Amino acid sequence: MTDYRRLRVALLGAGSVGSQVASLLRQHADELADRAGARLELVGIAVRDVDAPRDVELPRELLTTDAESLIMGADIVIELMGGIEPARTHLLQAINSGADVVTANKALLATHGPEIFDAADQVGAEVYYEAAAAGAIPIIRPLRDSLAGDRVQRIMGIVNGTTNYILDRMDTEGAEFGDVLADAQRLGYAESDPTADVEGYDAAQKAAILASLAFHTTVPLDSVHREGITSIDKSMMDAARHAGYVVKLLAVCERLTGGEGEGESISVRVYPALIDRAHPLATVHGANNAVFVQAEAAGNLMFYGAGAGGVQTASAVLGDVVSAARRHIAGGVGVGESTLANLPIVPIGHVTTRYQITLEVDDEPGVLATVAGTLSEGRVSIATVEQTVVHEANGGPGVARLVIGTHKALEQDLSETVDRLAASGVVERVVSVLRVEGD
Amino acid sequence: MTDYRRLRVALLGAGSVGSQVASLLRQHADELADRAGARLELVGIAVRDVDAPRDVELPRELLTTDAESLIMGADIVIELMGGIEPARTHLLQAINSGADVVTANKALLATHGPEIFDAADQVGAEVYYEAAAAGAIPIIRPLRDSLAGDRVQRIMGIVNGTTNYILDRMDTEGAEFGDVLADAQRLGYAESDPTADVEGYDAAQKAAILASLAFHTTVPLDSVHREGITSIDKSMMDAARHAGYVVKLLAVCERLTGGEGEGESISVRVYPALIDRAHPLATVHGANNAVFVQAEAAGNLMFYGAGAGGVQTASAVLGDVVSAARRHIAGGVGVGESTLANLPIVPIGHVTTRYQITLEVDDEPGVLATVAGTLSEGRVSIATVEQTVVHEANGGPGVARLVIGTHKALEQDLSETVDRLAASGVVERVVSVLRVEGD
Repeated sequence: MTDYRRLRVALLGAGSVGSQVASLLRQHADELADRAGARLELVGIAVRDVDAPRDVELPRELLTTDAESLIMGADIVIELMGGIEPARTHLLQAINSGADVVTANKALLATHGPEIFDAADQVGAEVYYEAAAAGAIPIIRPLRDSLAGDRVQRIMGIVNGTTNYILDRMDTEGAEFGDVLADAQRLGYAESDPTADVEGYDAAQKAAILASLAFHTTVPLDSVHREGITSIDKSMMDAARHAGYVVKLLAVCERLTGGEGEGESISVRVYPALIDRAHPLATVHGANNAVFVQAEAAGNLMFYGAGAGGVQTASAVLGDVVSAARRHIAGGVGVGESTLANLPIVPIGHVTTRYQITLEVDDEPGVLATVAGTLSEGRVSIATVEQTVVHEANGGPGVARLVIGTHKALEQDLSETVDRLAASGVVERVVSVLRVEGD
Repeated sequence: MTDYRRLRVALLGAGSVGSQVASLLRQHADELADRAGARLELVGIAVRDVDAPRDVELPRELLTTDAESLIMGADIVIELMGGIEPARTHLLQAINSGADVVTANKALLATHGPEIFDAADQVGAEVYYEAAAAGAIPIIRPLRDSLAGDRVQRIMGIVNGTTNYILDRMDTEGAEFGDVLADAQRLGYAESDPTADVEGYDAAQKAAILASLAFHTTVPLDSVHREGITSIDKSMMDAARHAGYVVKLLAVCERLTGGEGEGESISVRVYPALIDRAHPLATVHGANNAVFVQAEAAGNLMFYGAGAGGVQTASAVLGDVVSAARRHIAGGVGVGESTLANLPIVPIGHVTTRYQITLEVDDEPGVLATVAGTLSEGRVSIATVEQTVVHEANGGPGVARLVIGTHKALEQDLSETVDRLAASGVVERVVSVLRVEGD
């Protein structure tokens, strides 16, 4: 066996990912040493409670509640505690003590990324975070390195496994949101408090990280427009299917080319959107994730895999640990985070997409003309219309359903126009307004 | 504008990829400088004939027929000449003169990879070859870095765009191989001599490169089992569709766990195979490529994108150039090629897969029993059988078609059994034997 140099690895957190990382570090020690060019010695695992039950059995002598002492003297620190504090403090301490750090903490990077990357730049340390962007899917290195000579135009990601599981079952089984959510909670696909997933907070954090990488710019989390999937019901899924679409919660990161005299800007947004069934993203089923990247020269690329899960995420973390170890051995300064551009981030109102508007209207002569006129005045151009009778006139007026597909329109125009339609005398109910992505 | 250090970049070859690389290097010079941390100065382009017509107009003063002088003194050499010689000599010259090299030359790497990587190791240079494995799809960094802490079990790749285009059109249009090939040649998807594509030579080179990376071992090109798609006809496509499969030319790289006392080995093979329509690889249409990776911890991953094309491949090349430049600036030694394992490569006869065997047999009592008996004696276990009458007895004996799906069987058992079936009195014709992949 080669006599490798030893690197001291400290692990913070022993939840489902942390315990898998600890287990794989020991199980594959020889192979990892060959790959890294150094023996990765797990010197301790910081936990809140050494007696808490674990997914995987860990050697008792490695567990400690003293994270600070553990960090001092470690060559590589793996932060898998989650949350903002004390993760942020520990990560900064690790960086300032000269360690390279690996983290899967998307909440932390999406809110304090610039602070952490700046601290690393100051001391020449490197921050690795493959597991923070799309679970086990290798997306950081492709965006940062493989596409470094290209220009990313748009990213559309299915980056939250829980919501994709729910929407996929609603689509394939015709089930209602609440029933599938309850089932997902029972099966462990959704938390008992599902807010972070179903309201799009988790996806928004990942969108901020992906946009920052793709466009080499700073993307504050509060600049990400966010809508969840709780308003999606069976009738919307049925209508989508009828029109050849499927509903997916998408994280969209887009480069916008300004008009004359204006520079470039970007849009970062998370919402449920319609996507054509022939689009590669439509074939992403269950709790899987996928990131679809459109680049100027490379064209369309897609990266697909498991979105979460302890052992899958552990794979991404270990890849980062090996990279950190190689750098430690090889020397040289890291790539750094190239937030070179400082692109303005446009509000959602300035974004253009296609829309599908579903209305219930009075089934009377002249109604379609009124609706069409209102759309036209609002600068919303109609691409397709389908009218069906909901129920016949029966004493009162009949009700018809109008499904209107628009050409690309500005979100603020669309939104004002829908308000006017809702207030008009002829529209009984705005059933849904969904964006159509993937052109 | 930041005052960057300048790196001298030499380009060898100005074909469809080379001319795009030259064009993008100049078009995105400022952005590339920011990403690389160095100004990438294209100092010359070595060509065979400075007066030859080009896809993209190139500055005449950069063109030279003197590759050797160009290479001397370059910091980064991009080899896009293709073929073995003089590409090999130039690449070795570049490495020995201290340059980092970028190449898209799969034929060269698949045949002389070890020689080139050894030469680079000797002098501490780095060889980048993202464009050699799957066109514009970033697969090298994910395999080498992201999955460095994991164990790849199997790769199944659609790595040749021409054959996927042909098979996809045969599948969707019910067309014959020859007609689609002629069409593909007219449209520029296939060469006038299509041998390298349709006989699987191109895919075999890529399979050797992918297997070598995934399993960290040396894979000589002649150890790759190779079959092309020229025997695939409309009737086989129809039968595949009927059974819920699609035919794809797959590059399969598999880790095999030996029995007791035996170590691990690998299998690398290229052939047309049946794949379930629900499998993500079945949704790869047209000239697109995809690489499906099964790893121990990460689970199933898929990387999808354009397989070829000048500008797409140029994107992959430029990503490598930026990586090479960063390393030049940052210092430190490279990762090196970790061909640490030296795994035996098993011949095709030792591989186990499922099979679909289509036979025309005499439609007489006892025939199915004879066929089933022969399979059983040959250690081939039947999973499914479908018998249909081809034509009724009409004076002579009737003919029936038997489509037999097998459980996993050893290739050499299967092959001997099919020979025995063909020689038996009851089988009129072995219509096809196709492997089924993707379990």
